Amino acid sequence: MRIAVVAPSSRFDDWEEVAARVIAIAAEAHPGVEIVFHPQCARIDRHFAGTDAEREEALVEVANDPGFDAIWFARGGYGSNRIAGRALARFGPAARAKSWLGYSDAGFLLAGLYRAGYADVAHGPMPRDVVRKGGEAAVRRALAWLAGRSAAALEPGLEAGRRHAAFNITVFGMLLGTELEPDLADHVLLLEEVSEYLYATDRAMFHIASTPSVRRVAGIRLGRIVPEPNDPPFGHDAQWIVRHWCERCEIPYLGRADIGHDSANKVVPFGLL
Amino acid sequence: MRIAVVAPSSRFDDWEEVAARVIAIAAEAHPGVEIVFHPQCARIDRHFAGTDAEREEALVEVANDPGFDAIWFARGGYGSNRIAGRALARFGPAARAKSWLGYSDAGFLLAGLYRAGYADVAHGPMPRDVVRKGGEAAVRRALAWLAGRSAAALEPGLEAGRRHAAFNITVFGMLLGTELEPDLADHVLLLEEVSEYLYATDRAMFHIASTPSVRRVAGIRLGRIVPEPNDPPFGHDAQWIVRHWCERCEIPYLGRADIGHDSANKVVPFGLL
Repeated sequence: MRIAVVAPSSRFDDWEEVAARVIAIAAEAHPGVEIVFHPQCARIDRHFAGTDAEREEALVEVANDPGFDAIWFARGGYGSNRIAGRALARFGPAARAKSWLGYSDAGFLLAGLYRAGYADVAHGPMPRDVVRKGGEAAVRRALAWLAGRSAAALEPGLEAGRRHAAFNITVFGMLLGTELEPDLADHVLLLEEVSEYLYATDRAMFHIASTPSVRRVAGIRLGRIVPEPNDPPFGHDAQWIVRHWCERCEIPYLGRADIGHDSANKVVPFGLL
Repeated sequence: MRIAVVAPSSRFDDWEEVAARVIAIAAEAHPGVEIVFHPQCARIDRHFAGTDAEREEALVEVANDPGFDAIWFARGGYGSNRIAGRALARFGPAARAKSWLGYSDAGFLLAGLYRAGYADVAHGPMPRDVVRKGGEAAVRRALAWLAGRSAAALEPGLEAGRRHAAFNITVFGMLLGTELEPDLADHVLLLEEVSEYLYATDRAMFHIASTPSVRRVAGIRLGRIVPEPNDPPFGHDAQWIVRHWCERCEIPYLGRADIGHDSANKVVPFGLL
């Protein structure tokens, strides 16, 4: 099995360290798996891992290369929305046969892929998670999913026979109404957030839960929210916020979920489990 | 003329100082104008100027009181979206006869009012702007608009015979698709931002400009954007961002606008000028 790593979002300054560690883990845990970090990972253009054109070209190249079985997004940050629509329009049949994995800003791409009917799209750990505390476990989990479809990698609350999708709250709010928004009717939607003020999360949940297309989901489950401190404190916690907007917008609130910007982040395959 | 001030968003800790200064300015510049700060301005509930119920009740009370000619939102921050839909549903005929003025978070209310066909809704300075450097001029400008329809208070690029609307970028992005979103087809849309990372503004402009309803505007004009510094720097300025997304989404970019989170912020009446 061959896995390509590309970086469609923020610059990936520590890509060499990350690549060495991830490749070493794969060599030990999955000897048959080859992980190829595309040279674009080393590109830097201001905030981004290369210009829009460089990131788009690399993504299209690996997507259309039948020699790769999976595309693994290197890290989050910001920027995949700038290239997602254009890149997807250039993907051929080889792209549809692949597995896709990432989260955070990569959610823009997961959304567009799932909207386009790609069958093997999942929300889960990325290579750069290896630098987190305990991050090696996150990388092992991602590889266990990509290489072996390990049930242990899955978010434990997923239900056979139900449809699921998972997103970062800010990313999901910003793709609503765009050409990347997937139809999530009857899906259980798992959400997580990091480094946003709780008042901004309240505002984003107003936006998300008020959107008619979102109100057709089967329910929302809340992953971990690690907010940025604010003065004055918001005074309610994240679960209060999500429960509040679910109730006001008549969306079933289905409890907590084991996803987040951390090394415990579990895998959520999009669509019917 | 009687103007009611209510605070539908963040707590208004310095309301006494602001009230004294604004009332003094009005007494000197517009002797016939009485400004009434509703007692709700003094309420504090965590992040907000009172609970949702307290803010909603105060807003509904002044909106439906025929003794007031105008409602002037006290300040921004966050929170008017939590009460806007419910309050608007309780407004009676007296509310439609009033002038409405505010900006920033109050944009949620301006949007809902304009969507509901209120004829006299404007984006412009609020009482708490008096504490800004040079803020007395902002308050004088707002009063010149509310009390005298002064043409000098207007944003200088507004055109007779055209429709306009103005919003904070984050607030506008978060109301798209909700029950507060107004129909801005053929409107010139003026946008401004403060204290957000430029990458977040780029993401918000992707969302805004990609939204089909927004793509029907006559064009976008860019007010002042005062970003939060980020590491690494985004590397492009705000005008590059807005121009970029306008071009990609085939929305005419119509140049700069004299609005922003500052004391120079000019008045933009919603609808046909």
